[in-house]
Amino acid sequence: MTKRYLLALLFFTQSIVSCSAPDDVDPLPSWNNGSSRDSIIAFVEAVTDKANANHVPVTERIAVFDNDGTLWSEQPLYFQLYYALAQIENAAPAHPEWSDQEPFKTALAGDRDEILALGTKGLVEIVLATHSGMTNAEFRQSVQGWIASAEHPTTHLAYSQMIFQPMLELLNYLRANDFAVYIVSGGGVEFIRAWAGNVFGVPPENTIGSDLGIKFEETESGPVLRRLPELNFINDGPGKPVGIQRAIGARPIFAFGNSDGDLQMLQWTAAGDGMSFVGIVHHTDADREWAYDRASHLGRLDKALDEGRHRGWTIVDMSSEWAVIYPPE
Amino acid sequence: MTKRYLLALLFFTQSIVSCSAPDDVDPLPSWNNGSSRDSIIAFVEAVTDKANANHVPVTERIAVFDNDGTLWSEQPLYFQLYYALAQIENAAPAHPEWSDQEPFKTALAGDRDEILALGTKGLVEIVLATHSGMTNAEFRQSVQGWIASAEHPTTHLAYSQMIFQPMLELLNYLRANDFAVYIVSGGGVEFIRAWAGNVFGVPPENTIGSDLGIKFEETESGPVLRRLPELNFINDGPGKPVGIQRAIGARPIFAFGNSDGDLQMLQWTAAGDGMSFVGIVHHTDADREWAYDRASHLGRLDKALDEGRHRGWTIVDMSSEWAVIYPPE
Repeated sequence: MTKRYLLALLFFTQSIVSCSAPDDVDPLPSWNNGSSRDSIIAFVEAVTDKANANHVPVTERIAVFDNDGTLWSEQPLYFQLYYALAQIENAAPAHPEWSDQEPFKTALAGDRDEILALGTKGLVEIVLATHSGMTNAEFRQSVQGWIASAEHPTTHLAYSQMIFQPMLELLNYLRANDFAVYIVSGGGVEFIRAWAGNVFGVPPENTIGSDLGIKFEETESGPVLRRLPELNFINDGPGKPVGIQRAIGARPIFAFGNSDGDLQMLQWTAAGDGMSFVGIVHHTDADREWAYDRASHLGRLDKALDEGRHRGWTIVDMSSEWAVIYPPE
Repeated sequence: MTKRYLLALLFFTQSIVSCSAPDDVDPLPSWNNGSSRDSIIAFVEAVTDKANANHVPVTERIAVFDNDGTLWSEQPLYFQLYYALAQIENAAPAHPEWSDQEPFKTALAGDRDEILALGTKGLVEIVLATHSGMTNAEFRQSVQGWIASAEHPTTHLAYSQMIFQPMLELLNYLRANDFAVYIVSGGGVEFIRAWAGNVFGVPPENTIGSDLGIKFEETESGPVLRRLPELNFINDGPGKPVGIQRAIGARPIFAFGNSDGDLQMLQWTAAGDGMSFVGIVHHTDADREWAYDRASHLGRLDKALDEGRHRGWTIVDMSSEWAVIYPPE
């Protein structure tokens, strides 16, 4: 652990105990001085200051964060897809027919561009084949086993190590200022819940995502929740404000995303009555992470970048504004 | 306000400040001495005592309550149905065709048994006609206007006055012991959210219920969430554990219901690994409230009563165990 990381931890611990941030500890040590850091701090100081016209009561301090590309990396494929591919590889010996059957054939070959070329239909088929049939508890255990042992194909880091240290500090800073912090992801809600508590400090009830049908089923050893091979809800694009309303029942005042799939969530947050903060992570760092936006087949940032610039949202230039990307090992 | 009510309020306030219950104030003044009161207190003392083998960490202290018939009355019709009937009456002048068209004709005539005889199809039609088309914000405002002014057809009390004082004390007692308290209702989630914060102290994110489809829609005055004339999810019976998993992502250790529609939620809670509390409100008080169970067309308690007795769940005899039913006016 570096000193900076220890300081961040210390800050978080102190915040829990004292319920207010000590003035002499930098809450965002991994954010370089610049416009994004300034706008975050200015917003939090305004809404938490009772004397400020923009003061927001604690119960309305709701912050929502996209996950893939906002809280952790998402290249060269969404990490949840690597989980699915690993499950297909594990199950392949029992399914010799997959060697000639799409989308499994392409999944097993493992070429990134060909996997993306399977399109929504093929990817959904891969997800349903690997995310359903078992109980919810079994699925959770499987994801936890994978995330504890799997490593990323190019960085060779653990996936849980590829979270953004500046965002981790931001989550803690918001919680220290009595924000309720939610993950609002296009990814599977139970996939994220399996590890987000330990990694981000976000509890399961604050995790909103896409989901499959689940069914209450009585078995000889008692009732279980069985995961069904059918999509229930896609928490992406215009689905994100819907998912937020269903789970939280109130509009956020703080939102962070990184792609066009977050646009409606950002618009919904910006359209609230009072002051709001809307942020976009712009992946501009090909050296330390990845650089992609308008032309990317995954995590495309195009319309939201235009709208964000037009409306003065906070657009984080990862390359210049983040002192570090991942937490020190 | 009576002295007893003031004491309960005082208890609640002190709990917030000190984060522990003062030993000399009765947390459940409206519960007569008896087996239900004893079993509630024994459970809470066991799971909150670090020296007890059944101690449960704060993050796992999840309590779920059915709403209709468990937290407030539900006779002679579910209160949400009275809201729907009032909306139909309001809209009737603009719909002369309703005088000959079911289910509106029966709804306008207002006979309780004939309304129930419309069955699920007719009742769903009434709900969809009165709960969709508007934005979520407009619906919320409409429900709030109704609950502030409407009165119950037989008691002539405000509906928000027909909540169970003993359960209000129980919610506060659990919260004072660091439980997260959720409403898990077959009723509409946004209907309940419109008033449950003020009435029960349960915030919108802790309210789980049935819901309609909602859609993110861009309008000239900005984005709205539009309520669609279609059922999205029925949070009843086997749907309750599903709704709990979707919203909370963890299993409760404490559950209270009053009808067979709660049975699977009670079973799911009872089937957890550790100690659990399962309670049933048995409506046995025809003088102060209503008396009904196995033969009722509404809030039927039959299978759950058998299973509860067989498994030793806490079955509250409203008539003998509750010193008062509704809060003092």
